[in-house]
Amino acid sequence: MSLLIAMTGWDLESWRQRFQRHLPALEIVALGEAFDRRSVRFAATWKHPEGSLAGLPQLEAIFSLGAGVDHLFADRSLPDVALARVVDPDLTARMSEYVVLHCLIALRQQRLYDRQQREATWIDDRNQPAARDVRVGILGMGVLGLDAAGKLMALGFDVACWSRTRRDVQGLASFAGAEGLGPFLGRTDILVNLLPATPDTAGILNRGMFTQLARDGRLGAPMLINAGRGASQDEDDILACLDDGTLQHATLDVFRTEPLPAASRFWSHPGVTVTPHNAAMSDPDAICALIARQIDRLERGLPLEYPVERTRGY
Amino acid sequence: MSLLIAMTGWDLESWRQRFQRHLPALEIVALGEAFDRRSVRFAATWKHPEGSLAGLPQLEAIFSLGAGVDHLFADRSLPDVALARVVDPDLTARMSEYVVLHCLIALRQQRLYDRQQREATWIDDRNQPAARDVRVGILGMGVLGLDAAGKLMALGFDVACWSRTRRDVQGLASFAGAEGLGPFLGRTDILVNLLPATPDTAGILNRGMFTQLARDGRLGAPMLINAGRGASQDEDDILACLDDGTLQHATLDVFRTEPLPAASRFWSHPGVTVTPHNAAMSDPDAICALIARQIDRLERGLPLEYPVERTRGY
Repeated sequence: MSLLIAMTGWDLESWRQRFQRHLPALEIVALGEAFDRRSVRFAATWKHPEGSLAGLPQLEAIFSLGAGVDHLFADRSLPDVALARVVDPDLTARMSEYVVLHCLIALRQQRLYDRQQREATWIDDRNQPAARDVRVGILGMGVLGLDAAGKLMALGFDVACWSRTRRDVQGLASFAGAEGLGPFLGRTDILVNLLPATPDTAGILNRGMFTQLARDGRLGAPMLINAGRGASQDEDDILACLDDGTLQHATLDVFRTEPLPAASRFWSHPGVTVTPHNAAMSDPDAICALIARQIDRLERGLPLEYPVERTRGY
Repeated sequence: MSLLIAMTGWDLESWRQRFQRHLPALEIVALGEAFDRRSVRFAATWKHPEGSLAGLPQLEAIFSLGAGVDHLFADRSLPDVALARVVDPDLTARMSEYVVLHCLIALRQQRLYDRQQREATWIDDRNQPAARDVRVGILGMGVLGLDAAGKLMALGFDVACWSRTRRDVQGLASFAGAEGLGPFLGRTDILVNLLPATPDTAGILNRGMFTQLARDGRLGAPMLINAGRGASQDEDDILACLDDGTLQHATLDVFRTEPLPAASRFWSHPGVTVTPHNAAMSDPDAICALIARQIDRLERGLPLEYPVERTRGY
């Protein structure tokens, strides 16, 4: 009985050792080496090659090694077995660190003060907005969105969330569905994207959305923080909207092509902050421990935690 | 019956109008103009000229227009009347914004990613520490220190506070007095100074303190954030400790001479973040409203809120 590691771009041997520690009763095998395909009951994957999970007759479950699961659905021959994502308190905390950090950089005009420092200029702006004067709008009300919302509210920000289907959370302004999107955007100074990559969210961070953001905010023009998925952003629109003032700043952790090509204008645009898709790195040991728990649940006949629904794509 | 405004460097007329709105029953007078010294019952001051509050026979109370009160004690002929500081929830919230922002910049290595962006370099460090791996030590357990501690803990940081005299606060690691300082510094990766300027705190942020900070932290060498008072820092020591690696970074909002002189090495040192003493700007209307409430308390025979104790100097 084995677990198959199917990953691209990550260090296989360190993952194999971790999985073996957490799952001593299983044989740990990997794509690219000889193994008995009939013995594979579980697969742990990150951007596995298309078709590489087909032909595993005993496969019961596929575990994504990251919070995102769009890499699973990129495989059109993905076996029809149970799917689960990683939901790791550590990953959630790190995503919130990132979102809070970049909202505070915007609120406290740290980019302005960095420039003033380079010019050895001392100007103390006595009309700084307080956090309560700045409206953050979070696209996505999953575990990540709600945690970030709570931490931003603790710092005083005026926070609302949007989700595809209505969710009511005590104390949080929430908007839902297509009809809620316009009002949500209209009260948003800092737009934070935490949506998964699905066919519905492909390219939604575009000019049509940015022109609906609040124009009467205390920060001047609105800002974008995308810590979700690169596939959600129209990169030409983001650059054009930064150039014409529709957006003041974009903080991007994800891109349509990663690593971001050296020729990209994002690197040098004065209105852009680039981070290398590390908003929410998870602790690899925490991921392996979670998958070990999930396998234990399956053995005991319990449903998987954090299941991925094929019909909605996340 | 009048309130005397005694300030240096701030715009008098806007303050006069604000005070008049909040205290319609009082005459609002100011230093530098003719007024009846026998009618002055209250003084609102920010860095008033030495001796300018003497010879006011009816003076009952002096209100500092900022959280700091060291400017009061700089006046050796300060009248022996009640003294109070500003404690404004808005000012407290802003100070915590600043402290959380700069702790997150350190935790999330934002200065490194800024450099990588300038060089169009994509390197995602998979060994980032989590907030729980980073120990923040706050000097000062007043309103400001406790608020910042709570918000840092909500983000997961491992926080301790130090104060002159022992204070026990539920859930917060606290150290006190001279004997507690060494153990406090020894478990601190990011040292945050929020102490008032007093004879006891003059120059305490010096090499002797920095060499006691933790050397085994996840961030590498320790960091300093001074959002308290410039008089607390030995600026030559800070620069020398940055140069020799005793400190990795210093984020300074305050300086011994403000505005920071153009020739200061702080402006251009790669290990320094300079902000122009605006960590915690208060809303002037909130200050006037607080002073109006304080005057109302005196009229009703109640003690002042937020009294300043002459013996300890804050």
